[in-house]
Amino acid sequence: MSQPTEKPWTGRFTEPTDAFVEAFTASIDFDRRLYRHDIRGSIAHATMLGRVGVLSADEVAAIVEGLQGIEHEIEQGVFQFSIKLEDIHMNIERRLTDRIGEAGKKLHTGRSRNDQVATDVRLWLRDEIDTICGQIRALQRGILNLAEQHAATIMPGFTHLQVAQPITFGHHLLAYFEMFDRDFGRMLDCRKRLNEMPLGSAALAGTTFPIDRPFVAAQLGFDRPMANSLDGVSDRDFAMEFLAAAAIVMVHFSRLSEELILWSTSSFGGLEMSDGFCTGSSIMPQKKNPDVPELLRGKSGRVFGSLIGLLTLMKSLPLAYNKDMQEDKEGIFDAVDTVKGCLKVTIDMLPAMTVRPEVMRRLAAQGFSTATDLADYLVRKGMPFREAHEVVGKLVRYCIESNRDLPDLTLEELQNQGSPIIERDILGGLTVEASVAARAHVGGTAPERVREAAAAGWRRIGA
Amino acid sequence: MSQPTEKPWTGRFTEPTDAFVEAFTASIDFDRRLYRHDIRGSIAHATMLGRVGVLSADEVAAIVEGLQGIEHEIEQGVFQFSIKLEDIHMNIERRLTDRIGEAGKKLHTGRSRNDQVATDVRLWLRDEIDTICGQIRALQRGILNLAEQHAATIMPGFTHLQVAQPITFGHHLLAYFEMFDRDFGRMLDCRKRLNEMPLGSAALAGTTFPIDRPFVAAQLGFDRPMANSLDGVSDRDFAMEFLAAAAIVMVHFSRLSEELILWSTSSFGGLEMSDGFCTGSSIMPQKKNPDVPELLRGKSGRVFGSLIGLLTLMKSLPLAYNKDMQEDKEGIFDAVDTVKGCLKVTIDMLPAMTVRPEVMRRLAAQGFSTATDLADYLVRKGMPFREAHEVVGKLVRYCIESNRDLPDLTLEELQNQGSPIIERDILGGLTVEASVAARAHVGGTAPERVREAAAAGWRRIGA
Amino acid sequence: MSQPTEKPWTGRFTEPTDAFVEAFTASIDFDRRLYRHDIRGSIAHATMLGRVGVLSADEVAAIVEGLQGIEHEIEQGVFQFSIKLEDIHMNIERRLTDRIGEAGKKLHTGRSRNDQVATDVRLWLRDEIDTICGQIRALQRGILNLAEQHAATIMPGFTHLQVAQPITFGHHLLAYFEMFDRDFGRMLDCRKRLNEMPLGSAALAGTTFPIDRPFVAAQLGFDRPMANSLDGVSDRDFAMEFLAAAAIVMVHFSRLSEELILWSTSSFGGLEMSDGFCTGSSIMPQKKNPDVPELLRGKSGRVFGSLIGLLTLMKSLPLAYNKDMQEDKEGIFDAVDTVKGCLKVTIDMLPAMTVRPEVMRRLAAQGFSTATDLADYLVRKGMPFREAHEVVGKLVRYCIESNRDLPDLTLEELQNQGSPIIERDILGGLTVEASVAARAHVGGTAPERVREAAAAGWRRIGA
Amino acid sequence: MSQPTEKPWTGRFTEPTDAFVEAFTASIDFDRRLYRHDIRGSIAHATMLGRVGVLSADEVAAIVEGLQGIEHEIEQGVFQFSIKLEDIHMNIERRLTDRIGEAGKKLHTGRSRNDQVATDVRLWLRDEIDTICGQIRALQRGILNLAEQHAATIMPGFTHLQVAQPITFGHHLLAYFEMFDRDFGRMLDCRKRLNEMPLGSAALAGTTFPIDRPFVAAQLGFDRPMANSLDGVSDRDFAMEFLAAAAIVMVHFSRLSEELILWSTSSFGGLEMSDGFCTGSSIMPQKKNPDVPELLRGKSGRVFGSLIGLLTLMKSLPLAYNKDMQEDKEGIFDAVDTVKGCLKVTIDMLPAMTVRPEVMRRLAAQGFSTATDLADYLVRKGMPFREAHEVVGKLVRYCIESNRDLPDLTLEELQNQGSPIIERDILGGLTVEASVAARAHVGGTAPERVREAAAAGWRRIGA
Repeated sequence: MSQPTEKPWTGRFTEPTDAFVEAFTASIDFDRRLYRHDIRGSIAHATMLGRVGVLSADEVAAIVEGLQGIEHEIEQGVFQFSIKLEDIHMNIERRLTDRIGEAGKKLHTGRSRNDQVATDVRLWLRDEIDTICGQIRALQRGILNLAEQHAATIMPGFTHLQVAQPITFGHHLLAYFEMFDRDFGRMLDCRKRLNEMPLGSAALAGTTFPIDRPFVAAQLGFDRPMANSLDGVSDRDFAMEFLAAAAIVMVHFSRLSEELILWSTSSFGGLEMSDGFCTGSSIMPQKKNPDVPELLRGKSGRVFGSLIGLLTLMKSLPLAYNKDMQEDKEGIFDAVDTVKGCLKVTIDMLPAMTVRPEVMRRLAAQGFSTATDLADYLVRKGMPFREAHEVVGKLVRYCIESNRDLPDLTLEELQNQGSPIIERDILGGLTVEASVAARAHVGGTAPERVREAAAAGWRRIGA
Repeated sequence: MSQPTEKPWTGRFTEPTDAFVEAFTASIDFDRRLYRHDIRGSIAHATMLGRVGVLSADEVAAIVEGLQGIEHEIEQGVFQFSIKLEDIHMNIERRLTDRIGEAGKKLHTGRSRNDQVATDVRLWLRDEIDTICGQIRALQRGILNLAEQHAATIMPGFTHLQVAQPITFGHHLLAYFEMFDRDFGRMLDCRKRLNEMPLGSAALAGTTFPIDRPFVAAQLGFDRPMANSLDGVSDRDFAMEFLAAAAIVMVHFSRLSEELILWSTSSFGGLEMSDGFCTGSSIMPQKKNPDVPELLRGKSGRVFGSLIGLLTLMKSLPLAYNKDMQEDKEGIFDAVDTVKGCLKVTIDMLPAMTVRPEVMRRLAAQGFSTATDLADYLVRKGMPFREAHEVVGKLVRYCIESNRDLPDLTLEELQNQGSPIIERDILGGLTVEASVAARAHVGGTAPERVREAAAAGWRRIGA
Repeated sequence: MSQPTEKPWTGRFTEPTDAFVEAFTASIDFDRRLYRHDIRGSIAHATMLGRVGVLSADEVAAIVEGLQGIEHEIEQGVFQFSIKLEDIHMNIERRLTDRIGEAGKKLHTGRSRNDQVATDVRLWLRDEIDTICGQIRALQRGILNLAEQHAATIMPGFTHLQVAQPITFGHHLLAYFEMFDRDFGRMLDCRKRLNEMPLGSAALAGTTFPIDRPFVAAQLGFDRPMANSLDGVSDRDFAMEFLAAAAIVMVHFSRLSEELILWSTSSFGGLEMSDGFCTGSSIMPQKKNPDVPELLRGKSGRVFGSLIGLLTLMKSLPLAYNKDMQEDKEGIFDAVDTVKGCLKVTIDMLPAMTVRPEVMRRLAAQGFSTATDLADYLVRKGMPFREAHEVVGKLVRYCIESNRDLPDLTLEELQNQGSPIIERDILGGLTVEASVAARAHVGGTAPERVREAAAAGWRRIGA
Repeated sequence: MSQPTEKPWTGRFTEPTDAFVEAFTASIDFDRRLYRHDIRGSIAHATMLGRVGVLSADEVAAIVEGLQGIEHEIEQGVFQFSIKLEDIHMNIERRLTDRIGEAGKKLHTGRSRNDQVATDVRLWLRDEIDTICGQIRALQRGILNLAEQHAATIMPGFTHLQVAQPITFGHHLLAYFEMFDRDFGRMLDCRKRLNEMPLGSAALAGTTFPIDRPFVAAQLGFDRPMANSLDGVSDRDFAMEFLAAAAIVMVHFSRLSEELILWSTSSFGGLEMSDGFCTGSSIMPQKKNPDVPELLRGKSGRVFGSLIGLLTLMKSLPLAYNKDMQEDKEGIFDAVDTVKGCLKVTIDMLPAMTVRPEVMRRLAAQGFSTATDLADYLVRKGMPFREAHEVVGKLVRYCIESNRDLPDLTLEELQNQGSPIIERDILGGLTVEASVAARAHVGGTAPERVREAAAAGWRRIGA
């Protein structure tokens, strides 16, 4: 394959491009990733040009065969990319002309790189969103399985990282089911909005050729052509929206990871991560570090950064295309890789954890975690909630001062230090099991409700 | 009204809160803004407690009347807010007890401030999104009106801020119609996802009282109760999603503003902002500055900041509620005010601009803006596009060197310097009017297409 | 005081400002905070105008007295701010003319609001940085005191939140001494760079009056006048640099807070926050929540947001002044308040904590925390470090499988499961006390080193 | 070279690492960039271990020679990196053992990867900062040269992008000299703070070996060892500070670029970028696009993103090392490359521009740019500035209404429409030349001042 060297726009220029500038402005190092979608778009464009009579049937056939050959070359690793040709579009087009001659020079009729790249990125991102959505569903299935196993496993529920009330581990897991379900919805909404076709916008104003945009849109699976050509080449909303959705996914991973890291400490100890998701220390022979959750947590930063990077990039850009927009790609490429990697590793990691129900239950029973149940008891006996809250608060202070726990108190103490309306029926009502069982309304932590919620979850994800 | 002083949780504590800490941790200075929605939520909660028998009918009636009275006090400016009572919830509850006695102390039965504040913020933001959506539609109507007026007004279309091809001003305006239409869609999608009710989650695990969450949800216009109580109190996805949508709105404002600022310069001169949207200089008597577009442009920063602020806040927070989350409000309050303010001022500003069609047309004719039309002409005569591009590039260089414009060239020059296949039929084909008229496909800049697109726009927004 | 109404620039305008626009573009709601520095700058400016003969001595005297009177009015709360006068500068100037007549109209000679506001903000921020630096030093003193008390208090050292090696609590605290010391240095460097005077730049190009900028700079404590007038009015580097320094301070607070929150949990339990820095729950009577550290942690978000907000604001702004820059203030105001508030509350909070040395020591002895000491022992006996690491790793696995700890193993087991080169001298060498004592080089955790480091710390901060 | 496969910490583990996890957690793909500094640090460490008797002289010699050989292998491209060995440290250490046997296993004595990587990154970044500082100085020299050439070239000075007052192009350029000078200072301050040595911190607490940290620090050019071992491994302040300084550099590039783009438009036209820094269009043959300034402008986004990414990463991380921190590198690598690339291309681009003084002067004379001079004239005649401002404002309105410019007015008109105190001496005083010459104080735009400022600039940068 001969080394291609000429740019597609030298006619008007008198001086060559500075060598460093050539590298500084080229995008081929990263946009080559779009090659498959670029070829797909070109085939649809050429087919349409044939239909409307701009290209002959032979030309179309040559172009399609040539492009398929190039796709094969790239996948075989024999395609020679050139920085002089700036980007994936010109690299492919030049090679096409090398392969098929004159017809290759006609492919760009009625389009511009401005609408071409916008189309490529949308096609590519649409595929990636589909992959991500599939992964989110797989993760949700894993969560549902675990939640069902642990519908009655009691653990401490925290607020302010202080033990608050006993909950079930299954219930806790299902909170993440909800988060990832919203992520799924945001991804789908983003896909819906991005699935319009820029192609046909040409440089910015459309073209003088009699193009058939609805035909091309249908070929490429777009819902419709974009309604305004200037918008077609200058809109990067879809990329910002995707990065925002990805950033929220990463918030969820950071929260889940923080919890996995905490629960894997020797102090909490309710979980142990599988060896396969940990690494050791180069100096401390005893260490087993939850590296994977830590990385998941830290990777939120890079996605937040890509989001703010693109918002900054687009801020104040006049219409239509500006070269700044070439910088849109690396951030979304990185975010896609990050989100997919985090999903993949979490899908595998969660079922491989060792859960320690006895440790969790022991922690759940500490810290006066059923104090609210006692206050609720007093309310049912007729005391206003605010007074009940204060009575139990004083009982807790009494326990702390005498170094005991609520279930340790005698009925007499409960009556004397708390309230005379406490009766024998309180005994047994302050266990962690009674506490979780009592929260049996929609969305509550009672084991039966957790099982119902899991069942509803399976229905929701259509599995 | 007596000055209330006691906190709702002092039973367990032995030391008073440090005075500075009290101010540092209180939220009443900003969350008072939620009073109307807090009261609305409390009325629904009390009504439900009556239905399920936790409160008597009399108690419910007293609570409802008391809360309505408090709303009136706040709106009259006679309510005395206390920083000692920390937040809007306790300020209202304490005042309720002052007004109605014992029944007031029962209102908090079966709920927590954790689910209460999450409910308040959702109710409030839902209303604000509805306002914003209404404003977006008003702005879109203004854009459609202007676009129809200027469907045939010719202006330069830019890429890289260099004159690229002639377009119509109406077409340019409709690009913004599209952007704001996507903003509208993102706001609606956010509203859809936020419209689930956290109330009933209580502190984190639900409550032991027999609450009827679907009833309360229906009372408050929520689509359903949230499915998981932990998620109910710890989810701030809706706020992050709103801020992301708001940030993208602000990107659009910054782009529009940048263009208005550019076109208002003496060099471009195609537009003049109305005096009412400009200010002068304290030192330079001749200045008329486009302050409003500049502020619109600059205000993107604060919304990006609020977005990154909330993402940072939520990163790595373990479930369920953490005090950090109190910091969620000021960012969304500020973003709501900013977006609403920018929409309002733009709705008024756009129709008040003076457009200078003759200046725009003159600029559109500069810079060889119809060179692409000549290349397309050559293609239609049979030349491959890449060759046509090069031929015209050389003609442009010839013009620059001889200080002329394309339409100035004689047919002979076009043939000699360009290509012999150029014929007499090119004459007249390189005017800006011919150029825009020729881009007549879906989404193109031809006046007839602009009018069609505007008509479709009216249908889309249901106006 | 009569209500002032006229703007300083209406001469050229034909239409009044839209009422909403007036509020949208005014800054008086937030920039009134600069009044003291605005007056200080105006006094210096007027004094200089007197020296160079632009104002008479009487005029200068009247202006100075008038401005002092206005400062008094503002501090007494009797000054009537008007949104119609846009900003603090015009509010004060108009009032000055009300008070002293003609001479007041001469104050603005040779300056513009562009250089005036840049000067005000620098003067204000310089004072705030001085306050912050004083607070950082106070916090560092508190840390040194605590570190000295706990120079020999043993606690677990963590990496990956897993127990790694025993350390001393004093050593841990001194890590924060270092962080805040760098913060101090960054604040000073920022102060150094901001301490140049914009005044005299006028609108952008300087003025035709014979101003004496070095005199004014000296009056206001600036190191020198800024060297370029365009830069003088358009530079906001100092604000970005301050926000970056503030963001790093907040990273440190977020790390410290995360640790305080963790150590205050019932599972870790090494610390208890004082009641005065905690709050309770409206529903759970037993709760004592570390609200202050949680807020400190969360407040990082708003400062990161202000930083990114200002970077966004300044991105792509052409020289010189643009109205966008009015948006620079609220972010730095909020960051100053946040940093000062966090410093104040932490200065008070740290000494009020209850430290539980016995709990810390117990945790430090778990998790094979002296495994590295055993590996080092083997190295000293001649084994290469990589082999020693592996030998001890296998011993740890043996311990886990037999549910024991390293110090529990007999010499025989150590030799059989580990290595025959282990001898009787190992006994006693695996205690946590021996472990910390052995790390006695510069920067190590040995108690003697901690005491030395604290002493060096006192010297460094000049206390 | 045989393929190395074993990790340095498998002793304690029972399950192998998941294959995807291995790739997910490995850093060798990006941290290989640190190889030279890693080797440099290891040589200093080994030399010190020899001095204190932990290694024999022969062992040290073997290690040093081995490491030098490895550096050569890497530079020759024959080194085989392995993802199984996780990072650059273990890749080099394993290869060292392959080459020299037992001694290689002793190199890691008394250190950990935690302090090793912190040391490597600081060494690397210190070198890069030195390069960047050199480039900034080169750019400043280019600016000074241009400023001297254009000390008297008149151009319009803008505020709000409206013509404000005439200035000189040299003066405008020197504003950027000031910005980059502050950037230089921030880089140096960052270098000063980062130049302390983490090595010797080992995992977090120091080591039991008798290491000599001051010796190693001196060998590596560090000012001193870090004072606290926990801080040594957990501090990434230097990276955040560098990214903040880099972000501000990028703000400056974005502002400069925005101006270059504006002035290169056909409407402004005061500048033409050299062909070598522009590219063309694939569709529009006439286009010459200022791609390089556009990319410079857009690249601010990625650096802001890396800054926010690292701040997010570090937020709330407990001490000491956490795996999250592995994510610190790519952001600073990218920022270093970006800043260096932008500096390089700008150093070349600025002198290659074509300046059009006649176009600039024509624009400077538009827009009543000397109105302030007239107001100042009135003040010198005794009118208070506020009145003079209003008088000139009305004159400007009169000009607009009669479609004229200030210098076109007759003395009679000036007196009748303006003020009777205007006399014959005003004539000639409203030219752009008179206007710039009159701003002759320190920092003003008068040509003589520009030349002085340039001379002072040369002295400041020591050139």
